[in-house]
Amino acid sequence: MKIGSNYLGNGRCEFTVWAPAHDEVAVQIVSPQNYVIPLQKDEWGYWKTTAENIEPGTLYFYKIAGETDRPDPASHSQPKDVHGPSEVIDHSTMNWTDTDWSGVPLEDMIIYELHVGTFTPEGTFEAMIPRLKELRELGVNAIEIMPVAQFPGDRNWGYDGVYTYGVQTSYGGPDGLKKLVDACHQEGLSVILDVVYNHFGPEGNYTSQFGTYFTEMYKTPWGMAINFDDIYSDGVRNYFIENALYWFQNYHIDALRLDAVHAIYDLGAKHILQELAEKVSTLSECIGRKLYLIAESDLNDVRVIRERELGGYGIDAQWSDDFHHALHTLLTGEQKGYYQDFGKSEQLAKVYKESFVYTWQYSRNRKKHFGSDASDRPGYQFVVCTQNHDQVGNRMLGERLTHLVSFEALKLAAGALLLSPYIPLIFMGEEYGEDAPFLYFVSHTDSDLVEAVRQGRKREFADFHLEGEFVDPFSPDTFQKSKLQWEKRQEGKHKTLLELYQHLIHLRRTMPALKKLDKQALDVSAIEDKKLLTLRRENNGNQIFCILNFEEKEANFKPSPGGIWQKILDSADVKWMGSGSTMPEKLIHEEDVTICSQSFALYELETLAQ
Amino acid sequence: MKIGSNYLGNGRCEFTVWAPAHDEVAVQIVSPQNYVIPLQKDEWGYWKTTAENIEPGTLYFYKIAGETDRPDPASHSQPKDVHGPSEVIDHSTMNWTDTDWSGVPLEDMIIYELHVGTFTPEGTFEAMIPRLKELRELGVNAIEIMPVAQFPGDRNWGYDGVYTYGVQTSYGGPDGLKKLVDACHQEGLSVILDVVYNHFGPEGNYTSQFGTYFTEMYKTPWGMAINFDDIYSDGVRNYFIENALYWFQNYHIDALRLDAVHAIYDLGAKHILQELAEKVSTLSECIGRKLYLIAESDLNDVRVIRERELGGYGIDAQWSDDFHHALHTLLTGEQKGYYQDFGKSEQLAKVYKESFVYTWQYSRNRKKHFGSDASDRPGYQFVVCTQNHDQVGNRMLGERLTHLVSFEALKLAAGALLLSPYIPLIFMGEEYGEDAPFLYFVSHTDSDLVEAVRQGRKREFADFHLEGEFVDPFSPDTFQKSKLQWEKRQEGKHKTLLELYQHLIHLRRTMPALKKLDKQALDVSAIEDKKLLTLRRENNGNQIFCILNFEEKEANFKPSPGGIWQKILDSADVKWMGSGSTMPEKLIHEEDVTICSQSFALYELETLAQ
Repeated sequence: MKIGSNYLGNGRCEFTVWAPAHDEVAVQIVSPQNYVIPLQKDEWGYWKTTAENIEPGTLYFYKIAGETDRPDPASHSQPKDVHGPSEVIDHSTMNWTDTDWSGVPLEDMIIYELHVGTFTPEGTFEAMIPRLKELRELGVNAIEIMPVAQFPGDRNWGYDGVYTYGVQTSYGGPDGLKKLVDACHQEGLSVILDVVYNHFGPEGNYTSQFGTYFTEMYKTPWGMAINFDDIYSDGVRNYFIENALYWFQNYHIDALRLDAVHAIYDLGAKHILQELAEKVSTLSECIGRKLYLIAESDLNDVRVIRERELGGYGIDAQWSDDFHHALHTLLTGEQKGYYQDFGKSEQLAKVYKESFVYTWQYSRNRKKHFGSDASDRPGYQFVVCTQNHDQVGNRMLGERLTHLVSFEALKLAAGALLLSPYIPLIFMGEEYGEDAPFLYFVSHTDSDLVEAVRQGRKREFADFHLEGEFVDPFSPDTFQKSKLQWEKRQEGKHKTLLELYQHLIHLRRTMPALKKLDKQALDVSAIEDKKLLTLRRENNGNQIFCILNFEEKEANFKPSPGGIWQKILDSADVKWMGSGSTMPEKLIHEEDVTICSQSFALYELETLAQ
Repeated sequence: MKIGSNYLGNGRCEFTVWAPAHDEVAVQIVSPQNYVIPLQKDEWGYWKTTAENIEPGTLYFYKIAGETDRPDPASHSQPKDVHGPSEVIDHSTMNWTDTDWSGVPLEDMIIYELHVGTFTPEGTFEAMIPRLKELRELGVNAIEIMPVAQFPGDRNWGYDGVYTYGVQTSYGGPDGLKKLVDACHQEGLSVILDVVYNHFGPEGNYTSQFGTYFTEMYKTPWGMAINFDDIYSDGVRNYFIENALYWFQNYHIDALRLDAVHAIYDLGAKHILQELAEKVSTLSECIGRKLYLIAESDLNDVRVIRERELGGYGIDAQWSDDFHHALHTLLTGEQKGYYQDFGKSEQLAKVYKESFVYTWQYSRNRKKHFGSDASDRPGYQFVVCTQNHDQVGNRMLGERLTHLVSFEALKLAAGALLLSPYIPLIFMGEEYGEDAPFLYFVSHTDSDLVEAVRQGRKREFADFHLEGEFVDPFSPDTFQKSKLQWEKRQEGKHKTLLELYQHLIHLRRTMPALKKLDKQALDVSAIEDKKLLTLRRENNGNQIFCILNFEEKEANFKPSPGGIWQKILDSADVKWMGSGSTMPEKLIHEEDVTICSQSFALYELETLAQ
């Protein structure tokens, strides 16, 4: 059931809102005139009418029980912020130029995660367009936009959104997003939109005045859970499923990144993720272009990405946080909080081969057994990263890896990421070692809430990442400080790192052994007692062998890949502003070699004979 | 991890209790002497020791923090009721005579559900033994015993049990149960034990003083949910998994009936039911005898019974309540509560073919879409009934079908059940139309709790099954009234009904078309506008055709099974105290026939030619 205000052209507009328990719901037009349009209720609790003489830009509320005016839960636009009226949008006016666009196949994706407000000085969709060329030159082919659902004020990561169908006004609203997507498609970039289906933000959420959007059956970290399986859940499920279809249809989005699906509680016989995947799959077939769903999941549950025929939900891919944690702990030595479960090179080896580290082992941090075996799943079902908005921004000081490790280690991290058999995600600025932090910022208009956020944040850090002064999320300065410094891309080590990313992406897209995300044709070994890994991949006659040294000292050992191998990259090379490669040009089986501290060397097979 | 007191022989006894958050836990022996045995804590929070000079029959508590004495959560016996000390049991003394016992295969099972306290006048395991012969003569080959876990007092259905490993003292305790199981096996009867893993009873449950048995993440109908997936859940999972193994190993139980698995909340990557099925499967292999798990599930979720390879939990079978409801509404015309979702003959037809009526349709009672498709699952994965302890006892007056419908309809119900391609479950007394009610009864020792139960029960019936006077669950009379009246088995219509059950079971066990629980080789049609069903089954050349008329008047129609069929049973026959069969001895394709009100006629194929 399509909900919200659906502009049909010629002044006709269909209004539909789900409010099953109410006896009277009407549309209160507030601009350009002020008048009320009655609605009729159907047997499922949807209130509807098709009104005449409504033009795009009309502002309206829903009037509940003849007295309370509330914005549309499925509002397409909130020009006057979260408490203001909703706006009728005409989606047919956009001049799309992407008719030939077929999208980037999941297997080929190299994702660039960005936050609209801090990606450019202007913080708008429009300001992003001239920058797309640089992303294309970097080699990425998909951008992942942090949530744009309308949130209070103009500074927010997006996870406090309360209008799931709305597009943040300060970013440029619906038109801005459409123009950005169209420009991306012109540049050959797919667009992944981050959507939040597990909670609503704490300010401006009026959904519960309309229907049973919440259930008391479960608790989430953010309070009451959204009602996906309790009585009267059908209307809630419809709200989110239609939302997914809405982005694909009206905004030409290529994929959705589903935020924190572990906080979507559904114990019914058809999980909402399964129903969502079914509906998106049907839409894909209708429009003849593959649309993707990528889940952020903290469950290590292979069911999320298994085919429906195998009892899975049929989501296309999911994040593997284990990859991040295994790599991060090797690079930084950190052991607090969830990092206590990681830190061994065998774990990074395992995650290269099996996608998860925790496959039903005991986790000290979680204090229980955790995870499931996903070793049979192809590499392109996993998105991995060395940094992302959470891993950076949830630190008290918003430190990027740049702040935590050496330049050599940044290059090593890039290699570990881009040579992996998974879909890499680069967090904006990572590619040139941005040294601005990415802090947590909000601009709620409710001052009690702002104070609660401050206190909550302080509590959260009470026994984790202690050093440094508390940063006020509400301060505009916190937001400003988090903006990318584009000028740095051309400076010294930043420039070198950028070139290394570029080069690695180029290799990944051109070398058969790197291009195919095949975990089966992959051998990985962790060298005992050394933070040293060897990785071998093969495809179609092409073979690579990579040695990664996470020790903060050089390592001496005898790699045994068989045959003779040609060096094609060493991050310790002076070309990459390193101390100079100590690795031989030709690598010969069982020959003694020395690899520089915190570096990686990549070889390609020349001949198997010796 | 084995928990509880594990008697090793020669006065040696291993005590193990999970109490991870405590700093001091000891064994307080209270009989025959009074002394304390210190325990040592391992890294997982288990407190253990192997003590000497402990004899079977020793009574003990665990002493927490040097002061509080509590019974063992994994107590094998509570001779002084739920608040008293636990007893050390020597499981090696039983003289088992069932060494050759291989169990009844799931596909062949005909289950008889009984409640120990009301099955015989004495209400003990021992008193059941002389009655087994009669069950065997009836033709059933498995008894399903309602829960025996120790509950407060001596009158309870068993779902208020608080010692999951204990055997109700008033029933005869551990020895009594073992002797019963052994006697069953001598009679060729498998024993299914009903176990409750979704909640603890409200009185005498001290588990939360030992560990994190509960989580605040979820709510169940009985309050806080048992902790299967939250922090520190491993010890809780172990408690229940070991319990399942314990019954199989120490009591030679053949199958467990898992109570209300829909109230087992587990959103982790390995559902507790999956882990349970894995462990039971391993034990099956070890002892060389197939052990079964049968779930009561109110989810219509095929995942419960799918193989693990197909993303299921691997439970062997589950109840199909839809079968009961579809049949019950056709027989009684009831439409209150959950019966509002049923009442059409097409629904009974669907459940014969697909096992569930609700396969993701909207349910008016549940107020949401519900269920999943299980049509590919074999018939022996579903247990069905016309009555059970819940469907009878959860009515305010505990009315059996005997009280609600005519004698003709009771015979029809028997046919509908026993000719189905599912595992039938007969509720004790049903086979001879017992006319004692089966009421809800408790004997809590806490008077506030008793009053709360009374009030809760009144509220529950406030808008459902209103007629009649409230029956006090605490009154001993309520318990007495619920006992079977064995003498009735030999009287008039009771005797005739019993013979009909016997005959139907005999046919089911001997006719190939009935024996094989194959839904694929089954055709079923509901005759439009008539409460009339035809059912055709086939196996190995043998074919049956059955006409079931649920109308309270005779029906005239032209069945079209093709060929010539020989009548082998008509429930309207004078032999079955009916008004006399109106159906022809030979049924010929498309011939006009008349079938008596509320009756069924069974035919066997003679020749396909006409």
